[in-house]
Amino acid sequence: MEQSAEVKLSVTGYDPIGYWSREAESVNELLAYRNPSGITWINVTGLSDPAVLNQLAESLNIHPLTLEDILLTEQRPKVEEFDDYIFFAMKIITWNDDDSPRFEQISFVVKDDNTLISFQEHPNPLYNVILKKIANDNSKLRKMGVDFLAYEMMDLTVDSYFNVLDRMGNSIEEFELRAMDESDKSFMIDLQKTKQSLMQIRRAVWPLRENISFVIRLEGSCFSDELDPFLKDIQDHVLQIIETVENNRELLEGILDVNLSALSNRMNNIMRVLTMVSTIFIPLTFIAGVYGMNFDNMPELRYEYAYPICLVVMLLIALGMILIFKKKKWL
Amino acid sequence: MEQSAEVKLSVTGYDPIGYWSREAESVNELLAYRNPSGITWINVTGLSDPAVLNQLAESLNIHPLTLEDILLTEQRPKVEEFDDYIFFAMKIITWNDDDSPRFEQISFVVKDDNTLISFQEHPNPLYNVILKKIANDNSKLRKMGVDFLAYEMMDLTVDSYFNVLDRMGNSIEEFELRAMDESDKSFMIDLQKTKQSLMQIRRAVWPLRENISFVIRLEGSCFSDELDPFLKDIQDHVLQIIETVENNRELLEGILDVNLSALSNRMNNIMRVLTMVSTIFIPLTFIAGVYGMNFDNMPELRYEYAYPICLVVMLLIALGMILIFKKKKWL
Amino acid sequence: MEQSAEVKLSVTGYDPIGYWSREAESVNELLAYRNPSGITWINVTGLSDPAVLNQLAESLNIHPLTLEDILLTEQRPKVEEFDDYIFFAMKIITWNDDDSPRFEQISFVVKDDNTLISFQEHPNPLYNVILKKIANDNSKLRKMGVDFLAYEMMDLTVDSYFNVLDRMGNSIEEFELRAMDESDKSFMIDLQKTKQSLMQIRRAVWPLRENISFVIRLEGSCFSDELDPFLKDIQDHVLQIIETVENNRELLEGILDVNLSALSNRMNNIMRVLTMVSTIFIPLTFIAGVYGMNFDNMPELRYEYAYPICLVVMLLIALGMILIFKKKKWL
Amino acid sequence: MEQSAEVKLSVTGYDPIGYWSREAESVNELLAYRNPSGITWINVTGLSDPAVLNQLAESLNIHPLTLEDILLTEQRPKVEEFDDYIFFAMKIITWNDDDSPRFEQISFVVKDDNTLISFQEHPNPLYNVILKKIANDNSKLRKMGVDFLAYEMMDLTVDSYFNVLDRMGNSIEEFELRAMDESDKSFMIDLQKTKQSLMQIRRAVWPLRENISFVIRLEGSCFSDELDPFLKDIQDHVLQIIETVENNRELLEGILDVNLSALSNRMNNIMRVLTMVSTIFIPLTFIAGVYGMNFDNMPELRYEYAYPICLVVMLLIALGMILIFKKKKWL
Amino acid sequence: MEQSAEVKLSVTGYDPIGYWSREAESVNELLAYRNPSGITWINVTGLSDPAVLNQLAESLNIHPLTLEDILLTEQRPKVEEFDDYIFFAMKIITWNDDDSPRFEQISFVVKDDNTLISFQEHPNPLYNVILKKIANDNSKLRKMGVDFLAYEMMDLTVDSYFNVLDRMGNSIEEFELRAMDESDKSFMIDLQKTKQSLMQIRRAVWPLRENISFVIRLEGSCFSDELDPFLKDIQDHVLQIIETVENNRELLEGILDVNLSALSNRMNNIMRVLTMVSTIFIPLTFIAGVYGMNFDNMPELRYEYAYPICLVVMLLIALGMILIFKKKKWL
Repeated sequence: MEQSAEVKLSVTGYDPIGYWSREAESVNELLAYRNPSGITWINVTGLSDPAVLNQLAESLNIHPLTLEDILLTEQRPKVEEFDDYIFFAMKIITWNDDDSPRFEQISFVVKDDNTLISFQEHPNPLYNVILKKIANDNSKLRKMGVDFLAYEMMDLTVDSYFNVLDRMGNSIEEFELRAMDESDKSFMIDLQKTKQSLMQIRRAVWPLRENISFVIRLEGSCFSDELDPFLKDIQDHVLQIIETVENNRELLEGILDVNLSALSNRMNNIMRVLTMVSTIFIPLTFIAGVYGMNFDNMPELRYEYAYPICLVVMLLIALGMILIFKKKKWL
Repeated sequence: MEQSAEVKLSVTGYDPIGYWSREAESVNELLAYRNPSGITWINVTGLSDPAVLNQLAESLNIHPLTLEDILLTEQRPKVEEFDDYIFFAMKIITWNDDDSPRFEQISFVVKDDNTLISFQEHPNPLYNVILKKIANDNSKLRKMGVDFLAYEMMDLTVDSYFNVLDRMGNSIEEFELRAMDESDKSFMIDLQKTKQSLMQIRRAVWPLRENISFVIRLEGSCFSDELDPFLKDIQDHVLQIIETVENNRELLEGILDVNLSALSNRMNNIMRVLTMVSTIFIPLTFIAGVYGMNFDNMPELRYEYAYPICLVVMLLIALGMILIFKKKKWL
Repeated sequence: MEQSAEVKLSVTGYDPIGYWSREAESVNELLAYRNPSGITWINVTGLSDPAVLNQLAESLNIHPLTLEDILLTEQRPKVEEFDDYIFFAMKIITWNDDDSPRFEQISFVVKDDNTLISFQEHPNPLYNVILKKIANDNSKLRKMGVDFLAYEMMDLTVDSYFNVLDRMGNSIEEFELRAMDESDKSFMIDLQKTKQSLMQIRRAVWPLRENISFVIRLEGSCFSDELDPFLKDIQDHVLQIIETVENNRELLEGILDVNLSALSNRMNNIMRVLTMVSTIFIPLTFIAGVYGMNFDNMPELRYEYAYPICLVVMLLIALGMILIFKKKKWL
Repeated sequence: MEQSAEVKLSVTGYDPIGYWSREAESVNELLAYRNPSGITWINVTGLSDPAVLNQLAESLNIHPLTLEDILLTEQRPKVEEFDDYIFFAMKIITWNDDDSPRFEQISFVVKDDNTLISFQEHPNPLYNVILKKIANDNSKLRKMGVDFLAYEMMDLTVDSYFNVLDRMGNSIEEFELRAMDESDKSFMIDLQKTKQSLMQIRRAVWPLRENISFVIRLEGSCFSDELDPFLKDIQDHVLQIIETVENNRELLEGILDVNLSALSNRMNNIMRVLTMVSTIFIPLTFIAGVYGMNFDNMPELRYEYAYPICLVVMLLIALGMILIFKKKKWL
Repeated sequence: MEQSAEVKLSVTGYDPIGYWSREAESVNELLAYRNPSGITWINVTGLSDPAVLNQLAESLNIHPLTLEDILLTEQRPKVEEFDDYIFFAMKIITWNDDDSPRFEQISFVVKDDNTLISFQEHPNPLYNVILKKIANDNSKLRKMGVDFLAYEMMDLTVDSYFNVLDRMGNSIEEFELRAMDESDKSFMIDLQKTKQSLMQIRRAVWPLRENISFVIRLEGSCFSDELDPFLKDIQDHVLQIIETVENNRELLEGILDVNLSALSNRMNNIMRVLTMVSTIFIPLTFIAGVYGMNFDNMPELRYEYAYPICLVVMLLIALGMILIFKKKKWL
């Protein structure tokens, strides 16, 4: 596990009329900035300083078990309802320097008092996309409640999977070509890694189906019924991701079968041809061996045309064997 | 992805007494043609011009999320209920030029005011079949409501799967023959492709089971109870398609097993025979080698009948080995 | 698909007191024979003449979708409730001339007015068994309603599966022996065929579980509660057939494993022994080759006992190698 | 199927105060012995005489379908509720002479009038265990109702599975050792047999989960609520048996993998070493062959030290090849 | 099975104000120590003396079936509700001397009168962790009811799985390296053992999901609603353990595939190169054999440059073959 980044606090307030955004040095400063009438979005980047997070949790009335879930970034995606807030934990995919996918936890608390507090392990472009939408006076986000902000976060998180699946689709196409290339030594290991990444995505996405259903069914929460079609839309995306993952797994299985079959075919062909060469020459060598024996009384040796006859016989034997092999379709 | 075709708009009106059909140049022209008393079917072919589709959606009160689903042709089949319409998205199978199946999205909106708006990626013969039924004064379609028109579209879409499954059945029979032919190099790749097509069909059909149940259970919608046996009929077809797909997969697995077993048997036979030839000649070559040694004192070399005796011994050894191999059923 | 047989119509009437049975030339003649007070059983053999069947369906008030299901003999088993009748479609197994199982559709309509109309693709001995029971004055069938006649048809149909499973049990036992016989070239193909037949039986039987439950749960139909223990008995049989099929599949998998292991063991043994023969003789041949060289100055060649010593050394080398192989348990 | 034993009838009566037990020659004699106030247990051993069983069934008001189930010893375990009794059919495991497990049917009818009638294919020690408990004045069995007697029979039957699973556990441990022994020719067949026995146990136990739940849920039957913890205890045992069976199957799969890997490793090692021996000697033999050629003008042959130099070169080539093999870790 | 340790009894009492802890020599002494107002925790280590346990069970009103479950340490985890207590049986993982995981049963009875009686097979550090929390005046445990003590026991037990899974994660990483090392003879067996341990953990954890749900749903028991978030937290852990186990199994499958592919690749490479060496030299040896024949009339033998020409031809043949092999990418 990479170490978590330094804690940075920012707060954004908006309502249909206007918006503002500020960086805060301390939790106290942060809390002073809260938006009394409109929607307040507190964004926390970096989970390295438990003291700050503890203070924040206490001031905002977040349950210790929730804080524990925010800090434990290795857990399953989940949604939990508390007395005055709903807690979401999800995985977002970004890229490591070596181009392998990295899963980071995005968690956020949606409070009944129109506040959303989000927690990220590292600074993520997700943040900027939402800020841009807030800055746009005509965006739907500005006109809707805090539940729509939560929806935007979920939607962008789920979209990150499509991104990674696209990239994987390309590498699977590459695997199809590599499957026929017997000199590709890392084929098997790369394929297993891709399989593992698929599994990770599946694990990250699978619980979301149920989680979103749970939010849709929630009554008397800050999530209004108006949001339902949007949540169902995310659920559709989740189903599609799961299907794509399954499809890719099947594709990989098929590629593996093709690869194994190609390798074994190639090996069989090599061994067959090599063995055939030996098989043709071994009887001929035997004949040569016979006439290399030193018996005194070997009358054939004395005949004038014995040698060319012998060579012709050898040639005939060789041709005969090749013919037989051809007939049996061994060659 | 192939590019989507140019947008073409057509509108058809019918009631038990008569029918009419027109091409429209623009959305405004199209809307002018609507049928006040009977049933109106608006058919949109080609999704390449979002502006036209947007205008259409707005005039007909179609939700932006629905329009998004219509344009996103890569998604899962689904049915969604909105306030005054039901939205269907399905996959229809047509054929690419290289004879591989191609999946296109057919989506349609069934409105409570007796209007059905259908959207196709490319012109599809489906359209003509329904037009013919509308033109037939005695057809059931003319006497029934807009829900029956929706049923006809679903039914024809599902029928396209039987079509492709029939063709696949033939290629599977071919695979059975090809499984025994070791020189068929594309066997494995073709088989994997067929498997993939089966999976695609399954993915396209699987959600329909639930979707149709959902329509049957819908209350207070434009789908009357009278349609239920027809919808159940489609569901029966869907189940049969799923079963056929599963059956074909199992057949392919079996063919693969036969193929692997045949290949490995053949290879084993070749190697066995070749190795046996070597095994018979190597000891004989050794004997020839012994009597080819140049020791001064090798009394056998001097005997008159040594050479023929030696040849006979070699022959006996060879026969003995062949006998042993036969006895052990190695030959 | 074999072609369907010519249409033959027969009608049988019975009540606790008596019975009668007649062949009819036409639908009109048939309808004239109906039994007003007791139970009427109309049996239709052969589905080749749609006109006759259409006339029959119309006179007996059978829905067009039902008639379609009767004619489409390739579909899944099903039970459907209509306003005044229940429709059953099942598969019965008979034997092709080459001893492979053939699945034919048996469908029947149980009407509320004590009439059962059955449809068979070809004449089937099933028919005679039931006729015999009707002819027997003491049979339970004579004393019960039309629902018991339907039960008898279902029961006999399901019994046909036991029949075929028995035969399969024998061929599976044969497979166990054949698994050890490497010269059996059709083993793999025969085994796959048997597997396919098992799958067919499963597909034919699987939907019956639910179908019979559906009939048991039906209320206000011609199926009285008195029949429930008998229907549950069929359900028990169905479960047992499914279990037997699963068991046989597992047996076949096991036999396949044994076969693969036996073949590979045998091949390995052959190759090992053959390779060992070569390995023993190649070094010896090398020694013979050395003393077959024509260098002028090879003092050993001149020693009197060089030759026998050389032979003894060769023997010792051969024995030594055999000993090593034995010790390493390679031989 | 082994033939069923001769019919033997015995009857036992008990209540908290006392007990008695008698053998009966005929059904009439048997019925005369029934216990008016306490609990009557009629035990029937051997199902070979249908006449006797028919008479018994009729006198005790047992349904013909139940009697059929008692006689059909090949069916699935089941529980059925009738008007005045509950019918149980289970499998008990005993041992064949060749130490393979044999499944026999134990069926019993628990009547509302405090009578239990049990049917066994062959005399089974189960019987004696229960008789001993009845003979013990302080046993719980004596103080409880007829439902507790049924519980005892079920409990002892289920216990017979633990017995057989214990024995199997031992043979699985043996398999672990045998997996490494390449000379064990019956390994594969024995392992498949053990797998089959596991499957049989699973099939015999699986339906019991549901059956016992069914008995627990029964209302107004002779099974009192007081028995529930005991029935749940059996259910726990059943779950444990299923888990053990699954575990053993996984163990066997793992052993099979180890076996295949060991066999293939060993074979590969043998072939590698043998092929290496050939590979070292073949070039040497070629050199010897070169100097065995009879060209007139081969100046090397005349040099005095040519022979020893040639031998040394051969040795160096051999050592060089061995070195290369060692370096490549092939040896 | 290791033998169970000697019975040791200890009793701890606590309430928000204070706590005490004592070892007891006998059950009578133990009972004298019970805490009238606060919470009493009786801990029993070692199950070797049934008499003591019987006496304890009787004095504390524990059902005989519960005591049986406590003594039968081989059973599945379970939770059972009795009239005045709830019984828990779980598995805790400790380590054998050879570093393999060992599963021990931890069972405890939570009585409505604020008493928890726990039973361990062997002394376990679990005990000390809880004692420390009791000794801490500010711990949540001291302020909560007996249900929280039960929660602490469950939590610590489940935590022991994370511990073992961490260790396994390490050994799986090792397997990844070992998969490429063909000389690792115990690879397969070690991998199977790790797989078995994963299965054991799964079996130990799987029932907990349902068990904890059962406790959460319990009404009117000593488990207050306040505990629900804590129990859900354990459930989350259980889900995560199950996911980790599944993930590890998939990883192992992938490693096995890589291993098999690496081994087979390596073997194929060796055999290919070795066979190629033979294939190159066998035709050359044949040529040498030809000119080693002793025919009188072999004119080539007399030519002055025959020998060097012959050597050059041999060299060209060898080079030609190598070239062909290179071109065909066999080398």
